[in-house]
Amino acid sequence: MSNIKSVKTEYYQIPLAEVLSDAKHGDHTHFEIVVCRITCNDGIEGVGYTYTGGKGGRAIYSLVEDEIKPILIGADSARIAKLWEDMTYHLHYVGRGGLVSFAISAVDIALWDIKCKRLNQPLWQVAGGANNSTRCYAGGIDLNFSEEKLLANIQGYLDRGFKGVKIKVGKEDYREDVARVAAVRKLIGNDTIFMVDANYSLTVETAIRFARAIEKYDITWFEEPTIPDDYQGYARIAQSTSIALAMGENLHTVYEFNYAVQQAKLGFLQPDASNIGGITGWMKVAELAYINNLPICTHGMHELHVSLMSSQPHAGYMEVHSFPIDQYTKQPFVVDANGRAVAPDVAGTGVEFDPALVGPHLIKQS
Amino acid sequence: MSNIKSVKTEYYQIPLAEVLSDAKHGDHTHFEIVVCRITCNDGIEGVGYTYTGGKGGRAIYSLVEDEIKPILIGADSARIAKLWEDMTYHLHYVGRGGLVSFAISAVDIALWDIKCKRLNQPLWQVAGGANNSTRCYAGGIDLNFSEEKLLANIQGYLDRGFKGVKIKVGKEDYREDVARVAAVRKLIGNDTIFMVDANYSLTVETAIRFARAIEKYDITWFEEPTIPDDYQGYARIAQSTSIALAMGENLHTVYEFNYAVQQAKLGFLQPDASNIGGITGWMKVAELAYINNLPICTHGMHELHVSLMSSQPHAGYMEVHSFPIDQYTKQPFVVDANGRAVAPDVAGTGVEFDPALVGPHLIKQS
Repeated sequence: MSNIKSVKTEYYQIPLAEVLSDAKHGDHTHFEIVVCRITCNDGIEGVGYTYTGGKGGRAIYSLVEDEIKPILIGADSARIAKLWEDMTYHLHYVGRGGLVSFAISAVDIALWDIKCKRLNQPLWQVAGGANNSTRCYAGGIDLNFSEEKLLANIQGYLDRGFKGVKIKVGKEDYREDVARVAAVRKLIGNDTIFMVDANYSLTVETAIRFARAIEKYDITWFEEPTIPDDYQGYARIAQSTSIALAMGENLHTVYEFNYAVQQAKLGFLQPDASNIGGITGWMKVAELAYINNLPICTHGMHELHVSLMSSQPHAGYMEVHSFPIDQYTKQPFVVDANGRAVAPDVAGTGVEFDPALVGPHLIKQS
Repeated sequence: MSNIKSVKTEYYQIPLAEVLSDAKHGDHTHFEIVVCRITCNDGIEGVGYTYTGGKGGRAIYSLVEDEIKPILIGADSARIAKLWEDMTYHLHYVGRGGLVSFAISAVDIALWDIKCKRLNQPLWQVAGGANNSTRCYAGGIDLNFSEEKLLANIQGYLDRGFKGVKIKVGKEDYREDVARVAAVRKLIGNDTIFMVDANYSLTVETAIRFARAIEKYDITWFEEPTIPDDYQGYARIAQSTSIALAMGENLHTVYEFNYAVQQAKLGFLQPDASNIGGITGWMKVAELAYINNLPICTHGMHELHVSLMSSQPHAGYMEVHSFPIDQYTKQPFVVDANGRAVAPDVAGTGVEFDPALVGPHLIKQS
């Protein structure tokens, strides 16, 4: 029987090696992980998780433990699409995206881990099987770095074999951002993919001026120029520059993605399985991207997304995020000689936390 | 000095006198209240709160206590617009509406309570002062009631002096809803305002058939016919019937209201100060309604909304909700001989919980 016997929740706070800054969230000193472990009657266990930039983790823990767990106990773990609806509508009044989507994500990923293990297949095959590797880029959180340190950081990415890089922008004076973009392009040469990310810190007007000023540096996308709520503002920016716009990390329902696609004139979608409702939510957005002729990309948790991105025929570029969750797992994160991230070839999602590594950072568990 | 000295949080679970049902949330057996008490250096205390239909309260408690409180301690309580932005963007990554909006609401209402107390004025004056009373209606949660019990319940509303009533719809077969609507209209006569609420349970197609079938019963609005995410679906329904559409309880950012106004062809907006970011959020939606020539209405917490609705020149109809929060406060909720709800004339929001009444239901406090 594949019925769910127990659900355990763990809450971790993991310090970053150094303080990382972006234009809107300020300093990051640590990140949070909420892990959900689901065990079925026959002993099969699935592991899912979500993460945050340091805030809200305890509330997510409460949602999984106090609100979702009672729905899961005794339910058939194979009926993922039903459980996803149940979780969504059980918590709908306090949900419709937002924090609830993080909690559902952790649970949904655990259910997919169980599904893959039962099939004895890796996630990249179960989710579509288009490929077993994906293009990727290193996403810096580097707005507080001096230009010298910024360039040293980028050089580190190149040394590790990355063929694409992204930097943060959103300085007080946008001309400083332009100078940093110029310096990075000079360092990386013309064959490296290059993106910028303003973490929604700019007005539409400043975003347009900045975009026009950096067009000559061959920018693959301009991520979150302004608040993610202003779809029509995105459209105004998109119509004023040749640089494609990207967003997704702050869209927490598939409906928000749908409206963004219809109205914001985006070039790339970046759902994050940790906050769009897990793999079930991510796959819905991947299909939305497909039918709208848009590449599918990701934000964060590259150790999991590598399998999802590899599985899709229309994969764009996967972010290798500056929160090194992969350094706390058993399966190493692999970038091959061509700069492509390689999906783990083990049954399940391929993400198993190493107790020796995460254990010291455990704050709370059920 | 008006700086904030302490923040205390309380979490209550309050049982309902009987089980109440709607089409999408199922049975309600209790509701939750999270209270936030803010004390300033000079001893002035403000009380704010939010409520839920029974789920998510512990997570809201965590957000107020673990995430928002550190921003508040030492801050100037008078700078409400700044604190509202600070809370919104501090929790933005896990926010953008959803559960975070409930937590911000509880805090924001406490800040407004302090503001009114410092001005020594009641909320209805501070928020606009258009009037000191407002039209209202009784909102039943009665989908599980037999037709006999439904009519007895409605008669109870009429006996209490209400000049407007709302019933739940969303039965398996919509023709049963049509029959209930007909029976209620027959009971209440032609001079009582009458609304229906499907709690987003219908498909667009069923909603259209149902709306057409009840047009002859003079329905003031059809609330949440389908999922609140489908603005264009709302527009399709609105274009197929003469009955105005209403929504708001599930829109948790002012941007969601803006897109709904632009696209969903609504006739009434129903923001709830307990989940749209408190009084600050509610006032933004009230102004949005005004500039779009729409009446402003409310969902839930009538003991607070009575002051906000009274204050506005374009107030429509205030819901007197079936969660009787007002029965746990010191200030009685008053409906006058004309069926209008009267705003309390005391300094502050006029909502002070009675420890003797809520005390037995306290689950957790800081």
